[in-house]
Amino acid sequence: SIDSTRLLGRIAELGAIGRDAEGRLVRLAASDSEKLGRDRFVSWLEDAGLEVAVDRIGNIFGIWNGTGGGEKPVMIGSHIDTVINAGIYDGCYGVLAGLEVIQTLKSEGLEPRRPIVVAAFTDEEGVRYAPDMMGSLVYSGGLDVTAALKTVGTDGTVLGDELARIGYAGSRAPGFMTPHAYVELHIEQGPVLEREGVPLGAVENLQGISWQKVTIDGDANHAGTTPISMRRDAGYAAARVITFLRDRAKASNTPTVATVGCIAFEPNAINVIPSRATFTVDLRDPDEDRLKQEETALAAFLELLSAEEGVGVSVERLARFEPVKFDQAIVRQIEAAARDRGLPCKRMTSGAGHDAQMIARIAPGAMIFVPSRGGISHNPKEFTADTELVAGANILLDVICGLATG
Amino acid sequence: SIDSTRLLGRIAELGAIGRDAEGRLVRLAASDSEKLGRDRFVSWLEDAGLEVAVDRIGNIFGIWNGTGGGEKPVMIGSHIDTVINAGIYDGCYGVLAGLEVIQTLKSEGLEPRRPIVVAAFTDEEGVRYAPDMMGSLVYSGGLDVTAALKTVGTDGTVLGDELARIGYAGSRAPGFMTPHAYVELHIEQGPVLEREGVPLGAVENLQGISWQKVTIDGDANHAGTTPISMRRDAGYAAARVITFLRDRAKASNTPTVATVGCIAFEPNAINVIPSRATFTVDLRDPDEDRLKQEETALAAFLELLSAEEGVGVSVERLARFEPVKFDQAIVRQIEAAARDRGLPCKRMTSGAGHDAQMIARIAPGAMIFVPSRGGISHNPKEFTADTELVAGANILLDVICGLATG
Ligand SMILES: NC(=O)NCCC(=O)O
Ligand SMILES: NC(=O)NCCC(=O)O
Repeated sequence: SIDSTRLLGRIAELGAIGRDAEGRLVRLAASDSEKLGRDRFVSWLEDAGLEVAVDRIGNIFGIWNGTGGGEKPVMIGSHIDTVINAGIYDGCYGVLAGLEVIQTLKSEGLEPRRPIVVAAFTDEEGVRYAPDMMGSLVYSGGLDVTAALKTVGTDGTVLGDELARIGYAGSRAPGFMTPHAYVELHIEQGPVLEREGVPLGAVENLQGISWQKVTIDGDANHAGTTPISMRRDAGYAAARVITFLRDRAKASNTPTVATVGCIAFEPNAINVIPSRATFTVDLRDPDEDRLKQEETALAAFLELLSAEEGVGVSVERLARFEPVKFDQAIVRQIEAAARDRGLPCKRMTSGAGHDAQMIARIAPGAMIFVPSRGGISHNPKEFTADTELVAGANILLDVICGLATG
Repeated sequence: SIDSTRLLGRIAELGAIGRDAEGRLVRLAASDSEKLGRDRFVSWLEDAGLEVAVDRIGNIFGIWNGTGGGEKPVMIGSHIDTVINAGIYDGCYGVLAGLEVIQTLKSEGLEPRRPIVVAAFTDEEGVRYAPDMMGSLVYSGGLDVTAALKTVGTDGTVLGDELARIGYAGSRAPGFMTPHAYVELHIEQGPVLEREGVPLGAVENLQGISWQKVTIDGDANHAGTTPISMRRDAGYAAARVITFLRDRAKASNTPTVATVGCIAFEPNAINVIPSRATFTVDLRDPDEDRLKQEETALAAFLELLSAEEGVGVSVERLARFEPVKFDQAIVRQIEAAARDRGLPCKRMTSGAGHDAQMIARIAPGAMIFVPSRGGISHNPKEFTADTELVAGANILLDVICGLATG
């Protein structure tokens, strides 16, 4: 079993790095505060005697070659970037558990047939640079690294410049190791495991993600003098889209979710009708056909809105990932490991996007989930009990041990 | 008649001052760019041989004492601050026409019984510091100057500090001259005069203004994993308020207007359900009872919303002004002046707030409107033809001449 004190200590320590003036955890991809987290992680990799490699998109790898000359490695991964005002578990838990598994196997004198690698992928959250899972997407060949490095962030910065600035523009070619298998341990970030009282999830699929940025153009005019009938109010039109998406998702009897997380009005003055509104749309569904239907319904609504409100509408795609099915054999290995430790385990779908969904393009993979209290994530209240964290890490240990030696 | 070349030249010159990097006119109250506009205006007052006075709230006065020893002055006023991405006429036209009227009367050798004063009031727009018409409100005793100087702006600055910084924290007590009468010339900023083909408006009343800032508190959570039924989405709740206000105003058969001009979400990240939404509400109606009804309807909706969406709602009042009736005698003098120059003139209501509504608390006053092409204002496309601008200024000349000598 893993060293729970070491794992929990590191989770707390990494969770203290990258706090802003108000104490909020804000470790956006390739930022100064994320650099501090990366540096700490790298120091732990070095302390553990692992070979450290960084690729061109800034993914960090801790490699334990073991006895595995020439064999493809077993990879454990996740991310250490965060959203704005984040919790301490999302991503970090999986990365630090991966390191913990390697250190445990090393110290127990295991001589695995295959190298074992722990990876921290760049920009999983996608909050600063879209799409999300950027580092693992590039690693798996889904996006050209040169194009990815040119991505302009929400703050106007360029990803490649920022990686160079913080010292994580590595030299290795993304994809330089093709994994034999990939396993990611993560908090569920949703309510299912807690509601059902099950401590472990064997994640067999992951829903599709559609991210769009919508810009609506109307006319600035005076808030006091302009009759309602003469307005081309971009802000009102945006509000209609927000209520349309949400009311539609609520009325449907499907797991479809729709979220507008970002918004801005121009000129954003109290007595000026907004001339422009920009906002993001995050649509998800485990079923690709249904996700397409939702996108089509939004496009049709935007067309109607443009006619009804006399506004211009333009849409930019920020991310689009189809639903992913994980490797059934690895899912069964996760279930078997839970059974062996006497722990209930539920097959389930991931509501969140994860690096595992990208690496699934190049290697068999699956995920392990542990419960999130109240289903809360992307929030400082994010919480998983220590016993649950430790149980998840031990299942990861067992599965990785099997994959690396089998 | 006034010197149209001088007036139109000054409007163009002042309109070029305070442009940002993108060429937008942004001369927010007490900002660096507004200081440039103030300096130019003061230099024109000095060139015209007027006495310049600045009061504690930064209102600028150009005083022509004439022969009027001890008489109350006739005051002409408006403002030179602007909204974001403004047109060049809103406010400046009235101030520069006031100066033009004084220069014309001076150069024609008139010896008026009363002093004539042109005033540029501070922060009429209210975009940076609420409430709007701050300078004239303080001047007329509606708000204590010490309290007003402590106002915190949308950018976190304090009005008093900013006035001191730009050199316009004057020493005169606001209200140091009580006007005998007050007249303000302004572009209509609405569609009425153009639609009716009338070049002049005699403004007999001005609608009530209610400004509120609404804050909605929900829960940040993950956009992918959180079922719609479990969300407390502050952004969605805000969108419901925006559509409620607008749909209600549209459905009513009243002149009520409702505008949400500013909005912000927190944390404002694409895959995070907004934990907080803040937005402004601008409600106006010429009828005080109806305006109260609209405020009550909004309050009731916010209560319903709080229950339905499980969100917290808090409201801050930014401005509240009852509808104002102007002085009938001056309105009739405006109509008479138009008749004498053979120009059609329409009695009308002002949709916008103006300094005249504040000065009406301490002196009889009224306003003159000229047409706004397409009813457009608070927009760089704001436009009034030169002939219309000149006609308005000549009516102002005639009315002021009558008031100062009569
Ligand atoms: N796990 C996680 O929060 N990923 C971020 C990408 C997303 O699902 O929005
Ligand atoms: N005239 C004008 O635009 N005033 C600004 C205050 C307001 O009516 O919103």
